[in-house]
Amino acid sequence: MEFDHIGVATADATGLAALFAELFDAPVAHEEEFDGMSVVFLELGSGYFELLEPHEGGAISRYLDENGPGIHHVALRTDDVTGALETARGAGVECIDEDPRPGAWGHEVAFLHPKSTGGVLVEFVEH
Amino acid sequence: MEFDHIGVATADATGLAALFAELFDAPVAHEEEFDGMSVVFLELGSGYFELLEPHEGGAISRYLDENGPGIHHVALRTDDVTGALETARGAGVECIDEDPRPGAWGHEVAFLHPKSTGGVLVEFVEH
Repeated sequence: MEFDHIGVATADATGLAALFAELFDAPVAHEEEFDGMSVVFLELGSGYFELLEPHEGGAISRYLDENGPGIHHVALRTDDVTGALETARGAGVECIDEDPRPGAWGHEVAFLHPKSTGGVLVEFVEH
Repeated sequence: MEFDHIGVATADATGLAALFAELFDAPVAHEEEFDGMSVVFLELGSGYFELLEPHEGGAISRYLDENGPGIHHVALRTDDVTGALETARGAGVECIDEDPRPGAWGHEVAFLHPKSTGGVLVEFVEH
């Protein structure tokens, strides 16, 4: 697999996008409203930073309340999320999503439970 | 810049490397003892997972004590860490390292303070 993006929980996606664009020469590749959040993707070589600003309750809102802003997850790109989930289950990993579901930017995504993966919240993403 | 790696704090770099190799088809690219830690780099397309297992005190050991295992930082690849730090200072960002210093795998590295960068601990790395 290849690195696809890190997901960053933030209360200010627009401000953080402007700062990261300046620091990292990382232009905005895509932005949308998705699942009650402002979502901004910044391009970094072959990968992205995904900035997630919640406007209502949900997983990212709870994460911000409990942990403050910062890196929330890492996403690996695959052309077969279903197969990746099967491999994970076969390795004894608990999956948050049993099947792929629609994610931001029209992608198919599924998450693994961090308690099975060394505290790392892993997303599989299929473009 | 391009994504280079995420750094993962762990109490078991060998075990996590074996799991991630299976889940992500991510072979070991490099391993070494560095700065009181076992460090393992797993290859993911054009980037890496850096697994950091401390054997004594230090920043990663404190991170594990306070937060448990998980994603510790994200590293962006540049051919000019000094210039990247100057840009960061110019943007009002607090730098943990005022100048590049030797990092794992023979790289030059410098870190930005997460309080200036939306809670994201950012490393600049020059191979």
